[in-house]
Amino acid sequence: MADEVILLDYWPSAFGMRTRIALEEKNIKFEHREQDLFNKSQILLEMNPVHKKIPVLIHNGKPVCESLIQVEYIDETWPGGNSLLPSDPYQRAQAKFWGDFIDKKVSGPTWVLWGGKGEEQEAGKKEFIEVLKTLETELGDKAYFGGETFGYVDIALIGFYCWFDAYEKFANFSIEAECPKVIAWAKRCLKRESVAKSLPDPDKITKYVPELKKRLGME
Amino acid sequence: MADEVILLDYWPSAFGMRTRIALEEKNIKFEHREQDLFNKSQILLEMNPVHKKIPVLIHNGKPVCESLIQVEYIDETWPGGNSLLPSDPYQRAQAKFWGDFIDKKVSGPTWVLWGGKGEEQEAGKKEFIEVLKTLETELGDKAYFGGETFGYVDIALIGFYCWFDAYEKFANFSIEAECPKVIAWAKRCLKRESVAKSLPDPDKITKYVPELKKRLGME
Repeated sequence: MADEVILLDYWPSAFGMRTRIALEEKNIKFEHREQDLFNKSQILLEMNPVHKKIPVLIHNGKPVCESLIQVEYIDETWPGGNSLLPSDPYQRAQAKFWGDFIDKKVSGPTWVLWGGKGEEQEAGKKEFIEVLKTLETELGDKAYFGGETFGYVDIALIGFYCWFDAYEKFANFSIEAECPKVIAWAKRCLKRESVAKSLPDPDKITKYVPELKKRLGME
Repeated sequence: MADEVILLDYWPSAFGMRTRIALEEKNIKFEHREQDLFNKSQILLEMNPVHKKIPVLIHNGKPVCESLIQVEYIDETWPGGNSLLPSDPYQRAQAKFWGDFIDKKVSGPTWVLWGGKGEEQEAGKKEFIEVLKTLETELGDKAYFGGETFGYVDIALIGFYCWFDAYEKFANFSIEAECPKVIAWAKRCLKRESVAKSLPDPDKITKYVPELKKRLGME
């Protein structure tokens, strides 16, 4: 029997993009079920009763929650195709360290870039650039975070790239001027079919931000 | 050549306890180097330059940071001894989900139990009990979170247990009255040598709290 793979997702989610990319890297066919986060569906509440968040990966009826856990699950469940995590325990631990760093540090200060104002937004810009510079140092002169091969840490970060246009326009700054290596890395990632297929057009996100702010009661 | 394993740690840290327990479960000899977090050592700053936090596991000179990543690294590096994570990818993903839940939800509201006051402390108590009840539901009638065998999720949570006495005394409530199954589970875990050896006496923590508050400028 063929695997049934369903992804409960929300198109602008940088977390959902991780899981989409991982599935594409493994050539796994999946059904994308777009969710309305302002009116949560019965299936989302049933499949992720603890956090009630997307993305949820449903594999043969069983849910896996949290995007980086999903990426690892996909890598372990479908070991054929491209390996997403290194096999060496030390290299795996380093990849997980940077995935965790991105979870803790990148996503936090970003809402303030498109949704904040004044001093709070200025502080957010400074924090965001510092975090990207830390990642740039880790990237160094490598093609991808893991070296020559696209993998877990790249997947953890790349989804945020299609929000950069919105960050820059709403917070009035240039990310490329501050972190050119991160931009060069992102462009390299976008040449992969898995990434190009999974990331929405940055312009679509920028145009969506005013609607999102309205729905969140931020305007 | 024998492995050189050093743990940069801080005795009351529920995160450090995770790594101590995992090393004990694998019968790995290690050097415990107590750190002064109010006057960080050169080795801590060098080995964890990003977060500058304990615990840091240094294996043959190379650092691994973040306690749950360390537990997994230990399990993969020394596959002999007790397995800490299940081998089945779905079960592994579930264990990681709960480890992540404990990281995100348990440790956050606890400082307010021993260090907060008034309404803030009341809200913290309510939140803490809710989180423990969610864990109690997940535990169900199993001996350990993974079933019959002590493992990753138990290791993620058990260190907080030796703080329960301080939470109860400073916030004036009974955790056992609200969550008897969690307490029974904790007592079961404490019968394991790895846990008994790695957790400090709760009374020592309760007595340390006033000093900690002073050092943190909370009094």
